[in-house]
Amino acid sequence: MAMSGASSHSLLLKNPNLNLFNNYITTTTHLNAFPLNRPNKPISVTCSTASQIRDRPSAASQSQDRVFNFAAGPATLPEIVLKKAESEVYNWRGSGMSVMEMSHRGKEFLSIIQKAESDLRTLLQIPSDYAVLFLQGGATTQFAAIPLNLCTPDDPVDFIVTGSWGDKAFKEATKYCKPSVIWSGKSDKYTKIPSFDDLQQNPHAKYLHICANETIHGVEFKNYPIPNNKESLLIADMSSNFCSKPVDVSKFGLIYAGAQKNVGPSGVTIVIIRKDLIGNAQEITPVMLDYKIHAENNSLYNTPPCYGIYMCGLVFEDLLAQGGLVEVEKKNMKKAQILYDTIDQSNGFYRCPVEKSVRSLMNVPFTLEKSELEAEFIKEAAKEKMVQLKGHRSVGGMRASIYNAMPLAGVEKLVAFMKEFQARHG
Amino acid sequence: MAMSGASSHSLLLKNPNLNLFNNYITTTTHLNAFPLNRPNKPISVTCSTASQIRDRPSAASQSQDRVFNFAAGPATLPEIVLKKAESEVYNWRGSGMSVMEMSHRGKEFLSIIQKAESDLRTLLQIPSDYAVLFLQGGATTQFAAIPLNLCTPDDPVDFIVTGSWGDKAFKEATKYCKPSVIWSGKSDKYTKIPSFDDLQQNPHAKYLHICANETIHGVEFKNYPIPNNKESLLIADMSSNFCSKPVDVSKFGLIYAGAQKNVGPSGVTIVIIRKDLIGNAQEITPVMLDYKIHAENNSLYNTPPCYGIYMCGLVFEDLLAQGGLVEVEKKNMKKAQILYDTIDQSNGFYRCPVEKSVRSLMNVPFTLEKSELEAEFIKEAAKEKMVQLKGHRSVGGMRASIYNAMPLAGVEKLVAFMKEFQARHG
Repeated sequence: MAMSGASSHSLLLKNPNLNLFNNYITTTTHLNAFPLNRPNKPISVTCSTASQIRDRPSAASQSQDRVFNFAAGPATLPEIVLKKAESEVYNWRGSGMSVMEMSHRGKEFLSIIQKAESDLRTLLQIPSDYAVLFLQGGATTQFAAIPLNLCTPDDPVDFIVTGSWGDKAFKEATKYCKPSVIWSGKSDKYTKIPSFDDLQQNPHAKYLHICANETIHGVEFKNYPIPNNKESLLIADMSSNFCSKPVDVSKFGLIYAGAQKNVGPSGVTIVIIRKDLIGNAQEITPVMLDYKIHAENNSLYNTPPCYGIYMCGLVFEDLLAQGGLVEVEKKNMKKAQILYDTIDQSNGFYRCPVEKSVRSLMNVPFTLEKSELEAEFIKEAAKEKMVQLKGHRSVGGMRASIYNAMPLAGVEKLVAFMKEFQARHG
Repeated sequence: MAMSGASSHSLLLKNPNLNLFNNYITTTTHLNAFPLNRPNKPISVTCSTASQIRDRPSAASQSQDRVFNFAAGPATLPEIVLKKAESEVYNWRGSGMSVMEMSHRGKEFLSIIQKAESDLRTLLQIPSDYAVLFLQGGATTQFAAIPLNLCTPDDPVDFIVTGSWGDKAFKEATKYCKPSVIWSGKSDKYTKIPSFDDLQQNPHAKYLHICANETIHGVEFKNYPIPNNKESLLIADMSSNFCSKPVDVSKFGLIYAGAQKNVGPSGVTIVIIRKDLIGNAQEITPVMLDYKIHAENNSLYNTPPCYGIYMCGLVFEDLLAQGGLVEVEKKNMKKAQILYDTIDQSNGFYRCPVEKSVRSLMNVPFTLEKSELEAEFIKEAAKEKMVQLKGHRSVGGMRASIYNAMPLAGVEKLVAFMKEFQARHG
């Protein structure tokens, strides 16, 4: 699998027609990743096998109908995953029903959620003493659930705030424990990560919370701070860089992520938590925010977001088929590199405010020296089917989110447009 | 639309081949319900228009591959809705992206959620002084959110407990207010609804909570109690009979429902709340459980379960196309009638424990006089593509959930099987 992922990657770089070729390679490569339960079944249940054989060229032409979607999340999904979902949405693998219709306690859905967890454990090499929970409510619900499950109301907690999401997590925690912001990048407009040596950690802090990648500001931790006492835990919101690169899970007490950036549609929140931390929720914790309930019931205490979990499972299969997170990170670094290079080599026509050493591989905010041209830039890009490039209102300018599923071809098209736009307006 | 709904309904009852005919009628009727943005676009994006024209007969044959799914939820969805979803999952109406990839703040998704709310308001004739919220976390999250938003910790609240779900709602409320069970059907194994005249309501109760339809026990309120002081509110969990019949929303302070029974996939929870009740959440309320946050942000405070909301919207369009909830209730009464008649006319071979006057139109629990045959019944039914008929472990026997999307043909096939099974084993 690593080979096929790597070879498709290298081929991509050689081929002049990246978009078409990428579709073709991806399709051929990834069909192996989805063993069809019924070998003769066409990918699209509404097409004959004959028309299916024509589906590869037509998939290419269909993908001409697709835009390159640079949204910060919900975000673009792998085309091969969408095609697989299309082929199964009406009748999942001969079950006679859609995944959306399945009892969450039936053998069909149990096979889906168990495979999704197993593949995620493989991708991130999650140790067996960590539980994986598929929950609802987004990272914002976890902002409350984490202190409710891990703290008493009097426990001190440390926050490193490198952007808006870390700040929101801190504010929510004030309801349930005694959090302190030990470092904030706000005065630098959230463009930096602190030096870990200078951090003034509270020796009694129950945990140290970080947001591993700030979606709005494009600031990403490249390595991780270590809590200053061995009882203390490192906790990370990885919503916007989850499964974008390998992570040593054992360094964390808890990792949480909304699925809608890198691994699926919105409506699924994944929590990876060391098992010995489960079971101490405060009495006021709503039952749906109690990790113990979900861990004891394998995320099936109540009806989970079944279809979203199914989609995450398809994405996990695809990430494994690409060769796993080592290969995925290579692709993400390549995409980010050509975009940041284009910005840095524009003689100031384009500017990225983020300190170079901590620039995000996922979210690339940039502005125009001539800010009056930004609306024009976004409008012209949209005409060329590159959408959702407007920056967050709190930062302005542009933001290109280039998650796992953004093809290299999409970033290459964007940088080509940026150079052409600069040539016209520089 | 009412006409087409009614005519398709009457045709259904006349036609000898209900299943095939139902598919044909439904398809032709409902195509009107989904104005295609691109008139020449086939329903399936992967098929040519020519093959699409053949899609109606082939839809019938495809539906032979489908099972009749009697699951209690997630549950069967309208075939026409699944076909529509199939046609749009890869590229929504020429947007170049799947609904699963859309920014929740983009114009495409805003049009989807606004239409879904508008159609739901039409279906239930929701007054303008009520807010409609699309949330996550299931009814179980609302068990906490309701007292957290409507009560102080010292407020008394009354519960009528007619089944397991009402009991769970009561237990969760004990964390956040002072609830009392003023009537419980537990001693009668949850087979009854109380006489409202005999209820001993607390004159100071903040609200009176009911579960309008108990999914596990098959007990349904046919009318509703009135709180005994005009400040008090009637609050109903309508998860398993939401949109199955007309409801006078103005009689309720708050109605809530998980979507996965009658109106969509799991992962969406709908709350309909009188606007003047919003804004008094207890300080310990997680921000994601605060109705004020969601109402002020039109359910877009954080990323909502976008695809689930889209699916609910397709179901709402379909319910309107059927003629609205008056027509839908007629179909549901007809389905329930033939099933309960088969049970009651079996000379005790089949038994439904629920008091006749309060039997659910949605969930029909029944047992066999010869209980040793129940496993055989379920196994043989599954062989004939009637699945998920096993009763809840707490009740035993069988349960047929016959929500809106269960075709009359499915119930007719079930009762034919029941009579044949009785003839062999009676």
